[in-house]
Amino acid sequence: MNESSLLKALIESLRCLPGVGARTAQRMAFHLLENDRRSGERLAEVMGRAMREIKQCSRCRTLTEHDTCRICANPARQATLLCVVEHPSDVVAVEQATGYRGYYFVLGGRLSPLDGIGPEDIGLDLLEARLDEGEVQELILATNPTVEGEVTAHYISELAAKRNIPASRIAHGVPMGSELEYVDSGTLSHAFEGRRKYS
Amino acid sequence: MNESSLLKALIESLRCLPGVGARTAQRMAFHLLENDRRSGERLAEVMGRAMREIKQCSRCRTLTEHDTCRICANPARQATLLCVVEHPSDVVAVEQATGYRGYYFVLGGRLSPLDGIGPEDIGLDLLEARLDEGEVQELILATNPTVEGEVTAHYISELAAKRNIPASRIAHGVPMGSELEYVDSGTLSHAFEGRRKYS
Repeated sequence: MNESSLLKALIESLRCLPGVGARTAQRMAFHLLENDRRSGERLAEVMGRAMREIKQCSRCRTLTEHDTCRICANPARQATLLCVVEHPSDVVAVEQATGYRGYYFVLGGRLSPLDGIGPEDIGLDLLEARLDEGEVQELILATNPTVEGEVTAHYISELAAKRNIPASRIAHGVPMGSELEYVDSGTLSHAFEGRRKYS
Repeated sequence: MNESSLLKALIESLRCLPGVGARTAQRMAFHLLENDRRSGERLAEVMGRAMREIKQCSRCRTLTEHDTCRICANPARQATLLCVVEHPSDVVAVEQATGYRGYYFVLGGRLSPLDGIGPEDIGLDLLEARLDEGEVQELILATNPTVEGEVTAHYISELAAKRNIPASRIAHGVPMGSELEYVDSGTLSHAFEGRRKYS
């Protein structure tokens, strides 16, 4: 009860950050107040603006402060390829790791009837309209390999099949650099089913 | 280069928090934007206010948004006891762990001539004025048991000696619940020097 109430409010608010508990929040608050107020002020300002101004891209539903995101606004990308992912962070991961040059569609979640999340909640109406445009010639399903991610991929593959658009699923198997001995059995079984001709 | 520039600015700004690297900052930004904008807005607002409004208590130099902190403003505490600590977080730690009911003086650092930190930088002029008031009858030195913390404690003990005010140093020894075998030799040697009559 002896701390400043504004300091207490700051410590409490910092706990909304993932992975930040009471002690970490306290350390963060004291660090900013004692050593780095300028950065703290800047963070406060940028965070406020980001929370207010960042919204969904009208075309792919990723996060952007513009009407369409930089990828959708880039005409040099391959319009015949569309990659469906669950989260905006998945776009970042694919962009950083792969040479993929097509467009994306971000669901913002996955089908989960038990949580009341249906097709429209993950923008599948928008995706259907996109497929109806007729430009997409391959739909790459890159939802997570969880039960719900697989169900979602299956559901979307049927939307594509209805329009005679080929759908593909990213490969699941043994991660590079790992050892078979330590890989879980589901992954190993997928790796065997998905084996390819050695060339 | 394909992320929104405001999103990138948010991720970059989050890295001013201690212990937050590039990946954690990215996770935090996406988490707030996708799942918890209200908390993000509140954090931004509270942090902005805290950075602008929280300053030093005019009496003890701890952090507060008022002119004097809640402890200094509490007349029920014991005015004969003054505890000197390095940081505002040390006040919180002492308050939570002990039954200490006197007042505090927060240095905001420690003497470090090599870094150009002299007596006035850690408020010792203010501390001397406080000792000259004549109310303090015991000065408890609770700086950290580091080389600089010890030097600082020694320096302050001489300010007290000049005014015939008894100074005490918090005990250093084997932490509760630990085992002698695993305690470093400096701590163990302090524990032997500081041994007390068993009662």
